[in-house]
Amino acid sequence: MEIKIMKNILDRNQDKAREVRDLLLSKKVLMINLISSPGAGKTTLLERTCSKLCGDVRIGVIEGDITTDRDAQRLKKYNIPIVVINTEGGCHLDSHSISKVLDLFDLENIDVLFVENVGNLVCPAHFDLGESFKIAMVSTAEGDDKPEKYPMLFREAKAVLLNKTDLIPYTNFNLSNFKKDLTKINAQIPLFEISCTKGDGLKEWFDWLLQQLNILLRI
Amino acid sequence: MEIKIMKNILDRNQDKAREVRDLLLSKKVLMINLISSPGAGKTTLLERTCSKLCGDVRIGVIEGDITTDRDAQRLKKYNIPIVVINTEGGCHLDSHSISKVLDLFDLENIDVLFVENVGNLVCPAHFDLGESFKIAMVSTAEGDDKPEKYPMLFREAKAVLLNKTDLIPYTNFNLSNFKKDLTKINAQIPLFEISCTKGDGLKEWFDWLLQQLNILLRI
Repeated sequence: MEIKIMKNILDRNQDKAREVRDLLLSKKVLMINLISSPGAGKTTLLERTCSKLCGDVRIGVIEGDITTDRDAQRLKKYNIPIVVINTEGGCHLDSHSISKVLDLFDLENIDVLFVENVGNLVCPAHFDLGESFKIAMVSTAEGDDKPEKYPMLFREAKAVLLNKTDLIPYTNFNLSNFKKDLTKINAQIPLFEISCTKGDGLKEWFDWLLQQLNILLRI
Repeated sequence: MEIKIMKNILDRNQDKAREVRDLLLSKKVLMINLISSPGAGKTTLLERTCSKLCGDVRIGVIEGDITTDRDAQRLKKYNIPIVVINTEGGCHLDSHSISKVLDLFDLENIDVLFVENVGNLVCPAHFDLGESFKIAMVSTAEGDDKPEKYPMLFREAKAVLLNKTDLIPYTNFNLSNFKKDLTKINAQIPLFEISCTKGDGLKEWFDWLLQQLNILLRI
């Protein structure tokens, strides 16, 4: 009986994710599910990305947070559509919450919809939101052992952003160990070495993002 | 029906936590549930604590990890009893898993049993393992907004360890904002400002820990 209920819940998430994905594809919206530990730099990445691309690309953001609208407040200055989902204790977003808030966006006028998931390297990796793809973000300050210790996300993601490379000289982070472990988990995954506060390495990220958008528009 | 099942699960966790707590109290074992995001420095704290206190204090460790025994390997050199719980995708430990592995320890010969929970600032805060108390650990590299964004853990914990203070000069971490927000969530909570890699601020942590052990022995 318990197993049956779990299956229903997961099926329903998957069904709704499929609906979301079909809707976004029909509207040519690239939805990116951005996943990391707390404080790895997701919001700073969105600030940098909006600052560079707003004007050329129509960006929208769904901010997933347990409580507060602090991240959304940081993005207000870009004058983009933002919706906050407060999970009130929940450790991840699901496709139903995404489906509900999509009504609040004018999807005809959005190219890229970022979902900043709840800060958590574990649970969000298990839930399909109907996104185009997941991005895994990790900060050098977290150590070089994260791909092997939290493999699910690194298997699921379409690209990895290694943030806070400017802190490497002050930590014991070993880049070659990190790359070796990541390759074991997901041999082909693109890796972007960036510093969102300093601006390092972001050009490659912007170029890759625009490339993903072009691929979608050709479908 | 779904609500009933959830209630049973939570009740059972709480019942088992009570059993664990009674057992540990009867054996005069201080069990500390150490919770943080991935890479905040839990294992390095345990390395420092073993290095300083082993000899005077009989320490045991339960290592909660999704997969791998990497953290346990780092602690082997201290020649202490260590048990690894691999959750295989699970985002937190529960009282049942703790109860099962307690049989593997000689509790008569342990003073402090550390539980290094799965790296996750959200889910572990919701689960009573039967610990004496929870410790919240957060790294300065995660930013100063964590208490307000993840309040549950900071409400539940008996003390906060702010780690990686050596990185403050290279980040935009604002210590006075952090303290202000923490005070709003939990006005009386002790805060230890430490750097586990540099060794800064650890004396206060060791002293406090020994004090907690003395309080337990007097009960």
